[in-house]
Amino acid sequence: MDQKIKQLLRDSRLHDRIVSEETAASWIKDGMTLGLSGFTRAGDAKAVPTALVEKAKQEDLKVNVYTGASLGSDIDRIMADAGIIHKRLPFQADSTMRKEINQGDMLFVDQHLSHTAEALRQGAMNPLDFAIVEAISITENGEIIPSTSVGNSSIFAEKAESIIIELNLAQPAELEGMHDIYELSKQGDREPIQLTNVDDHLGTKGIPVDIEKIKGIVITNQVDSPSTIVPPDEETAVMANHLIDFLRKENELGRLPDNLAPLQSGIGSVANAVLHGLLESEFTDLEVYSEVLQDAVFDLLDAGKVRFASGCSITLSEAKLDEVYSDISKYRDRLVLRPQEISNHPEIIRRLGLISINTPIEVDLYGNVNSTHIQGTKMMNGIGGSGDFTRNSRLAIFVTKSIAKEGNISSVVPFVSHVDHTEHDVDVIVTEQGYADLRGLAPKERVPLIIENCAHPMYREQLYAYYKEASEQGGHTPHILEKAFSWHTNFAKNGTMLEGSTLGV
Amino acid sequence: MDQKIKQLLRDSRLHDRIVSEETAASWIKDGMTLGLSGFTRAGDAKAVPTALVEKAKQEDLKVNVYTGASLGSDIDRIMADAGIIHKRLPFQADSTMRKEINQGDMLFVDQHLSHTAEALRQGAMNPLDFAIVEAISITENGEIIPSTSVGNSSIFAEKAESIIIELNLAQPAELEGMHDIYELSKQGDREPIQLTNVDDHLGTKGIPVDIEKIKGIVITNQVDSPSTIVPPDEETAVMANHLIDFLRKENELGRLPDNLAPLQSGIGSVANAVLHGLLESEFTDLEVYSEVLQDAVFDLLDAGKVRFASGCSITLSEAKLDEVYSDISKYRDRLVLRPQEISNHPEIIRRLGLISINTPIEVDLYGNVNSTHIQGTKMMNGIGGSGDFTRNSRLAIFVTKSIAKEGNISSVVPFVSHVDHTEHDVDVIVTEQGYADLRGLAPKERVPLIIENCAHPMYREQLYAYYKEASEQGGHTPHILEKAFSWHTNFAKNGTMLEGSTLGV
Repeated sequence: MDQKIKQLLRDSRLHDRIVSEETAASWIKDGMTLGLSGFTRAGDAKAVPTALVEKAKQEDLKVNVYTGASLGSDIDRIMADAGIIHKRLPFQADSTMRKEINQGDMLFVDQHLSHTAEALRQGAMNPLDFAIVEAISITENGEIIPSTSVGNSSIFAEKAESIIIELNLAQPAELEGMHDIYELSKQGDREPIQLTNVDDHLGTKGIPVDIEKIKGIVITNQVDSPSTIVPPDEETAVMANHLIDFLRKENELGRLPDNLAPLQSGIGSVANAVLHGLLESEFTDLEVYSEVLQDAVFDLLDAGKVRFASGCSITLSEAKLDEVYSDISKYRDRLVLRPQEISNHPEIIRRLGLISINTPIEVDLYGNVNSTHIQGTKMMNGIGGSGDFTRNSRLAIFVTKSIAKEGNISSVVPFVSHVDHTEHDVDVIVTEQGYADLRGLAPKERVPLIIENCAHPMYREQLYAYYKEASEQGGHTPHILEKAFSWHTNFAKNGTMLEGSTLGV
Repeated sequence: MDQKIKQLLRDSRLHDRIVSEETAASWIKDGMTLGLSGFTRAGDAKAVPTALVEKAKQEDLKVNVYTGASLGSDIDRIMADAGIIHKRLPFQADSTMRKEINQGDMLFVDQHLSHTAEALRQGAMNPLDFAIVEAISITENGEIIPSTSVGNSSIFAEKAESIIIELNLAQPAELEGMHDIYELSKQGDREPIQLTNVDDHLGTKGIPVDIEKIKGIVITNQVDSPSTIVPPDEETAVMANHLIDFLRKENELGRLPDNLAPLQSGIGSVANAVLHGLLESEFTDLEVYSEVLQDAVFDLLDAGKVRFASGCSITLSEAKLDEVYSDISKYRDRLVLRPQEISNHPEIIRRLGLISINTPIEVDLYGNVNSTHIQGTKMMNGIGGSGDFTRNSRLAIFVTKSIAKEGNISSVVPFVSHVDHTEHDVDVIVTEQGYADLRGLAPKERVPLIIENCAHPMYREQLYAYYKEASEQGGHTPHILEKAFSWHTNFAKNGTMLEGSTLGV
């Protein structure tokens, strides 16, 4: 056996368990349920799912696939394309998979990312036959060291009947020691999570497992696929400035300290760009307590703006990926990766009082937010961690451009076509137009703020007209139910939400 | 001074602060913000708000009123009637107040009941000028002993500029020692809440305050107004049986222990009746971790079915009120009243893994729940604690009759007209027809379960027809946005949700 592999598989009992991905895939039978490592393109099981797709060309095969979040390396795409998935949860972000879901060819359960572990613990979903977990090593005492994400890997390893390891030689071995694995006991037998600072460590550096459960180890050599975020642009810079103006005012009013509060930022270009804006701000000694650590977090770490970052996954653009992983050791004392149940846990989010920054698909006049469904029916990616954070954070902020599709879609509508975050949970909405601070306001007080400060000028009059007509009928939250979705149906029919137009602007 | 009062006001510095309610009310000026004790008719400030309404007959007076939840003793009604409230939060349940809110004559902020304290701590709402808190005594070391509810009294007392005490001689003095007051520090400086059992005590038996903040003490002598719940009936008994069948299956499958898990039950007749159903069940050694303790909890305590009950308020029917308060001491070791922030805290709810039972206004085909708005526009009472519990509990259960208004309203609709609990948060729906266990199911899997097991037979065909038409257009969550609210608009126009009917059944 290769000396390097011996150094990575330090429990000698494992040395005779190395198998090909085809052999590992052969163990997986029709109807089984798999728990795959991987969170937003980071640390995903790569070889075995690919082999499984090959195997499915020869035989009928449908499996349930649970993951941390979205997978990279085209794994979600090829599995969806091959039609081997019966049910998938809790999050995805692949266009082919999305199509399958929306055509009704695949079942998808859109879960809060902190909830999957509890559901498995309760035994209320199909039990896992196999956990397939990417690792960078297995220690002498049998702990699995995950790679670039932890996600749900620890609960999958705990609950699965058997475990397949993908030992990925292409991932930076220096990540060892940068994970903190803490598993919760069953509800009712559980102690408080003793985390009061973002840099507290609670558990072990690897996933402790019964080594007999590890049925096979597949050696792989493939880096994560990079994120597809686009760099900050002029408009996202304006949005970032509005957000920073708001934070500055909160600081001046004594509501936030000079280093703000631990920051969470959702996945994607807009959230990344907004966080990036803090580079130019006066705020220092910042802390991050988030799920995905994107490019901006590393820029802020490098600039000395962020003191410490806690996440459950590292997801980087192509350029940043090489830069960060060529010298990951320098972040050793400033970074930790945790299970997503801990990164997204209500207990911690509420205790620390996070500032959460997420991106909606659309918001409505009263502050309800749609994060998941296009036109109320078609799944985009899923709610992800936005619910975990928004409900429990100190400041629940949503950031979006005020219009999309050259102005034919308004991000501010009379009634969101799907509700993921209710009016009770949304504190601040930011667009390139400005921000609306909705805290402590009744529905009617929120309306003018959202229209004036967030909606695009081209839609303001139309929003006021809806609200005026609705108000004439009275009610705490005025609506005209016949017209509540008229903007969406107008878009479906005429390609624009603009009234009196049949082809937008 | 009366010897009895001396015994209740044990800090002698307070003896010269006794004033009439008129004097106390004279301190309250136009534009002030008040924090009133009281949670679902229990332990509300009674005399000073009444005097304030009298005072408002002579002068212009508008105040903001924050409470624990709804007030009893007609306080919400007379304040609304007098038009003295500018803004009210976080919950109410009075028909006059409701009318004012829905006419737009009064602002109402509908908050999660665990969120008000955080909002005050953050300084993101109007600061409190006065806390007006009903008490049964003040100890030698200056702790205020609340009466039949704790609600938000402790955070109000902490944050208010001044405190007015209503020392109520009619409340049972034996309640002293049955409260557990634990206040959280600011977010960021906060320790874990070290509660791992429903009967753990964390704090002090009274509200510790700077005694100099107590500006006046008003002596009162008026019992709480009783709850208006109606006794269990045949239909609620059927619903309770469906719920118990579900719990029994969970127990048989090893998902719940023989004493289930700590129970939370919402306010009102249906939730009370369902809990009452456990009297006849095989489950014993039960625990309650709830906000309001209603009649059923005491019946279960008396029957030896419930071992211990934790709440933030005791709200009883007229008959039960006399019975319980004539001998409250017998519950001394089996009961605790906490601040609502602790009774409803996500950290505790998730840790203990509660079974939460709440009542919706309507649910939809996919499991979204409306708890607050009639026809999407008119506020009923507010979300209360249902969001705190539902999001974080082990089992989030909603219980409702399948129809209302002689069948002209279906509780199961295509699209709820307001969303308070999203599909991600709802585990089980129970009606008199049966129950639908939605855990781990994709939207399309939920639809037939909800229609067959929960909807009334008279509406099933109509629900299937909507779903079939919607499905033809595809999508993860099929809808026809043009018709999503057609049941509601049909009801508004024709008095019934039944299609092809103009006068229901």
